Amino acid sequence: MDISTVAGLLLAFGLVLWSLLIGGSLGLFVDVPSVIMVIGGTFAVTLVNFRLVDMKGVGTVVMRSFFFKLPSPGDEIERIIAYANLARKEGLLALEAKLHEVDDSFLAKGVQLVIDGFSADTVRDIMDLELSWLHQRHALGKKMLDAMAGFAPAFGMIGTLVGLVQMLANLSDPSSIGSGMAVALLTTFYGAVMANMIFLPLAGKLDVRAKEEALLRELMIEGIVAIQSGEKPQLIKEKLKGFLPPSEREAVAV
Amino acid sequence: MDISTVAGLLLAFGLVLWSLLIGGSLGLFVDVPSVIMVIGGTFAVTLVNFRLVDMKGVGTVVMRSFFFKLPSPGDEIERIIAYANLARKEGLLALEAKLHEVDDSFLAKGVQLVIDGFSADTVRDIMDLELSWLHQRHALGKKMLDAMAGFAPAFGMIGTLVGLVQMLANLSDPSSIGSGMAVALLTTFYGAVMANMIFLPLAGKLDVRAKEEALLRELMIEGIVAIQSGEKPQLIKEKLKGFLPPSEREAVAV
Amino acid sequence: MDISTVAGLLLAFGLVLWSLLIGGSLGLFVDVPSVIMVIGGTFAVTLVNFRLVDMKGVGTVVMRSFFFKLPSPGDEIERIIAYANLARKEGLLALEAKLHEVDDSFLAKGVQLVIDGFSADTVRDIMDLELSWLHQRHALGKKMLDAMAGFAPAFGMIGTLVGLVQMLANLSDPSSIGSGMAVALLTTFYGAVMANMIFLPLAGKLDVRAKEEALLRELMIEGIVAIQSGEKPQLIKEKLKGFLPPSEREAVAV
Amino acid sequence: MDISTVAGLLLAFGLVLWSLLIGGSLGLFVDVPSVIMVIGGTFAVTLVNFRLVDMKGVGTVVMRSFFFKLPSPGDEIERIIAYANLARKEGLLALEAKLHEVDDSFLAKGVQLVIDGFSADTVRDIMDLELSWLHQRHALGKKMLDAMAGFAPAFGMIGTLVGLVQMLANLSDPSSIGSGMAVALLTTFYGAVMANMIFLPLAGKLDVRAKEEALLRELMIEGIVAIQSGEKPQLIKEKLKGFLPPSEREAVAV
Amino acid sequence: MDISTVAGLLLAFGLVLWSLLIGGSLGLFVDVPSVIMVIGGTFAVTLVNFRLVDMKGVGTVVMRSFFFKLPSPGDEIERIIAYANLARKEGLLALEAKLHEVDDSFLAKGVQLVIDGFSADTVRDIMDLELSWLHQRHALGKKMLDAMAGFAPAFGMIGTLVGLVQMLANLSDPSSIGSGMAVALLTTFYGAVMANMIFLPLAGKLDVRAKEEALLRELMIEGIVAIQSGEKPQLIKEKLKGFLPPSEREAVAV
Repeated sequence: MDISTVAGLLLAFGLVLWSLLIGGSLGLFVDVPSVIMVIGGTFAVTLVNFRLVDMKGVGTVVMRSFFFKLPSPGDEIERIIAYANLARKEGLLALEAKLHEVDDSFLAKGVQLVIDGFSADTVRDIMDLELSWLHQRHALGKKMLDAMAGFAPAFGMIGTLVGLVQMLANLSDPSSIGSGMAVALLTTFYGAVMANMIFLPLAGKLDVRAKEEALLRELMIEGIVAIQSGEKPQLIKEKLKGFLPPSEREAVAV
Repeated sequence: MDISTVAGLLLAFGLVLWSLLIGGSLGLFVDVPSVIMVIGGTFAVTLVNFRLVDMKGVGTVVMRSFFFKLPSPGDEIERIIAYANLARKEGLLALEAKLHEVDDSFLAKGVQLVIDGFSADTVRDIMDLELSWLHQRHALGKKMLDAMAGFAPAFGMIGTLVGLVQMLANLSDPSSIGSGMAVALLTTFYGAVMANMIFLPLAGKLDVRAKEEALLRELMIEGIVAIQSGEKPQLIKEKLKGFLPPSEREAVAV
Repeated sequence: MDISTVAGLLLAFGLVLWSLLIGGSLGLFVDVPSVIMVIGGTFAVTLVNFRLVDMKGVGTVVMRSFFFKLPSPGDEIERIIAYANLARKEGLLALEAKLHEVDDSFLAKGVQLVIDGFSADTVRDIMDLELSWLHQRHALGKKMLDAMAGFAPAFGMIGTLVGLVQMLANLSDPSSIGSGMAVALLTTFYGAVMANMIFLPLAGKLDVRAKEEALLRELMIEGIVAIQSGEKPQLIKEKLKGFLPPSEREAVAV
Repeated sequence: MDISTVAGLLLAFGLVLWSLLIGGSLGLFVDVPSVIMVIGGTFAVTLVNFRLVDMKGVGTVVMRSFFFKLPSPGDEIERIIAYANLARKEGLLALEAKLHEVDDSFLAKGVQLVIDGFSADTVRDIMDLELSWLHQRHALGKKMLDAMAGFAPAFGMIGTLVGLVQMLANLSDPSSIGSGMAVALLTTFYGAVMANMIFLPLAGKLDVRAKEEALLRELMIEGIVAIQSGEKPQLIKEKLKGFLPPSEREAVAV
Repeated sequence: MDISTVAGLLLAFGLVLWSLLIGGSLGLFVDVPSVIMVIGGTFAVTLVNFRLVDMKGVGTVVMRSFFFKLPSPGDEIERIIAYANLARKEGLLALEAKLHEVDDSFLAKGVQLVIDGFSADTVRDIMDLELSWLHQRHALGKKMLDAMAGFAPAFGMIGTLVGLVQMLANLSDPSSIGSGMAVALLTTFYGAVMANMIFLPLAGKLDVRAKEEALLRELMIEGIVAIQSGEKPQLIKEKLKGFLPPSEREAVAV
């Protein structure tokens, strides 16, 4: 669970809600047809732009990025060093006993490949391919959220144009001009909120998480290949610590 | 036939139509000269920017991308493995009997080259050249749709400026101000709808389809070259499965 | 003469003219000082941004691109094959008799180099340098048209701001507000028309033509070098046909 | 302490304050809820886009960039030459006595590595890794400030839309229209000030400082490696002076 | 002195001045506080974004680019050929007698290096480094002018927002609405003029001049290295003429 995403969303929506309430009633800002049009329209053109299967996949990637906590790189370095020690003492096959305690499926796959006796190069090739598909999933997710951040305000503007034309065609009743225009502006408001408070910052967060995960995966690949090659655990640790920012290196035990 | 494109377009246009109807009569939003000007103008400057022959070609590419279903990569892998088995048992010439059942012209061309006895390098060069022309056709299509997504709102704005100037020059009759401005806004509305509901999402879908097709074509080239080189079918299968996202690999038979 | 450029421009301007006429008199949209300001201002800052000599050169490149028809790649392939046959039979010097019938100066220069006895590498170096200058001329032309497409609406907006300030300072006569604002909007209208109906699509077309010409020139270089190297005509033809899109290859004779 | 940043900020805010005061009372431009909404909203979505730990880190990087003066490249060249002389006369270990006077931690780390007897390649690898983390911290800082420069005006616009809808729904009292609209515009004003007077120029300055620091660090790496390799001090000086712009080279003492 | 820059600026400002005068009095467009705010604010945030020393340096680069005429490439080729002839006949040291007549400091430095007996590679390295600093100075200049082209309209908008809020808060006197809004629009007008008539076209011209100077410097480096290597003058001339556009090559004397 990513605290800052949830806290930021609650704070942003809380602030907007508060600004709606202190200036009048909330009802002014709720117009069900406008909501349907902006949300539905954004969804519809996203469906044209991408494929339903991609939209489902991206939903999963986004959810996974926000609610699934990545293992800490420091912990993983310590785990890899422990496995390296074990492998040097008792051989690569001894890792089989540890496999059940690896809950990260990426690392587990790598360890399995080592146990199965594949060469270092083959292990690296297979794991790099896994990583490239991870990059592609993240890139597609970011692209889709960015596209939605463009479509939402566009539908907001289309909705406002519709409202303006309808209002301008009925100028005979001056008392309705203000409320007509207020309603017309609502779709622009919805579009701006969706783009700037949801899609754009989530696209940015997905990018941040993608970089974090990619670094962790590269660290794991480097570590697994080093175990396979029988490198000294102390040397592996020094190499893997280079994947951590300087400020976090001290925290790695041993 | 690409379901999500058609469903998305129907949904988006349905929503806009519904928003027109619930707020007044549809007639408010139909102004034939405005329609002619925005659609005609967008077409005209696209003709200046590109060539008529390119516009026809892009129309074909777009139509083909949306209505022609690509073979499934999994099916093609199985087909290639079957051919590899056949070629290893009975020689490359035995593929000739299978040629009639290949309905994808790209794969058929590759198999024909193998039967004709070209070397692996020559087959790869020729097929790569085919692929590069495919990339160019797709890139031109995306470029044209993106250009149209820029020209449509520009013509919408030009139309609105024309309407505003005409309305402002006749302020003497206040009762016509509203309707004049409503009509002036229609071209902006048409331009925004064309750009955001048709050209931009179609350009995005073309990109998605282009990547999908390119991956399939690369898979085919890899498979054909492997058959020519007489690689083991099991090895070919492993190699080709790397072109599939991990979640789809299990589904490949054998 | 490039049909689609001329037809597109006529159609676009015809549509705008028609929209001016059906909504009122054409006179509403003609304001000589506004025309002078937007066209003159765009020209003036383009002069600041580039050099007078570049502007003349670009004018020539643009005109040449639109009114000078490139030889067809298919015809040139056939011509090159014919020369290759002649050179193999009667020696490179026999090409001298054909030189007078080459009306494309680029090809003529290449053939002359071959007759003069330069090595294949030297011929390629000299022709590649020619080609790189061609690229630069086209790139400068595109850059200038793009810059003008940015300056024209900027001058339109500056003109409109001037008009608005003058109108707002004279609000005492309400009857002149409408016409004052109509005139103020005219410069924005001119700027939008210039950018979206002339500069942007011409910049795009220049790009299309530049790519077309570059491909033709690369085909010629490849052909000339092959003739110098004494390659078999049949082999040259296969190589040069790779420069054509698949759909046009069948049309090449022999 | 970076003089130009502080002076520029004071001047920019002084000018805006002055323009507020000469046109009326300052109170017109202070609306606490609007301030809370724009600043709070920008902070909230930045929190969604990035992570709290990154925001703290960037705060440190920005502060450090503006208030921590980098050592002068000229002084560092002279220091490195002095160390090179010492190392050539008395051996690399003699540098240990100088270590306490190196107050730049980057240079100190490099000198320590040399004293510890690491090879030139290892020293370079370790220092290059340090440098790449420095680049990443700066890049993240610039990205965050650029994101905030986008979110601030977006929240300004959202706030203005809220204010406009509230005002339009209460048109019955004409005397409040002006003040309602004035308040509605305040959030747009705050957003524009934050983006253009704080976030964008600070992002630019961070970039300038990052380049300055990167050049200094590269100079240090080059110098440390040269000391380790026992190069002639005169030669080291010539090499390092290449890192200085020509106009500053004369100032470096011999 | 660059004619087109000065002529273009005079023409552009003349046209705007003329449009101010034909529509009313010039006094409408002069508001000293607005001028101070937009120019001062743009200068202030540029100071935040860059450093005072960079701003001075860029001022020099810009002035030098516009008022200092580059030597003609054709003349320099002839000069280099003359020196090459001299060096072949009387030795590299004979160039010393010519050094006083070289008024371009870049070429003079190169000739001095040759006289001093440095190897061709060293001469090229040192001159390439000089050239890379030249590129950096030009790039910084362009970046700063582009930044100012962004800040000027932003300050224009901030000024207009200030003016609008002040006007809206004083709607009680309807006769002052027009003049209040006219003054509010002035800062937007100033910002648009500064960006589109000064900063953007000057940034573009700096780019054009930078490319021109870079080409000349590369030609000089090639020529100096060729002299040092004792190449045949005729061969040097052919090589250097490749730096000229084809249309200017004929003009180079033998």
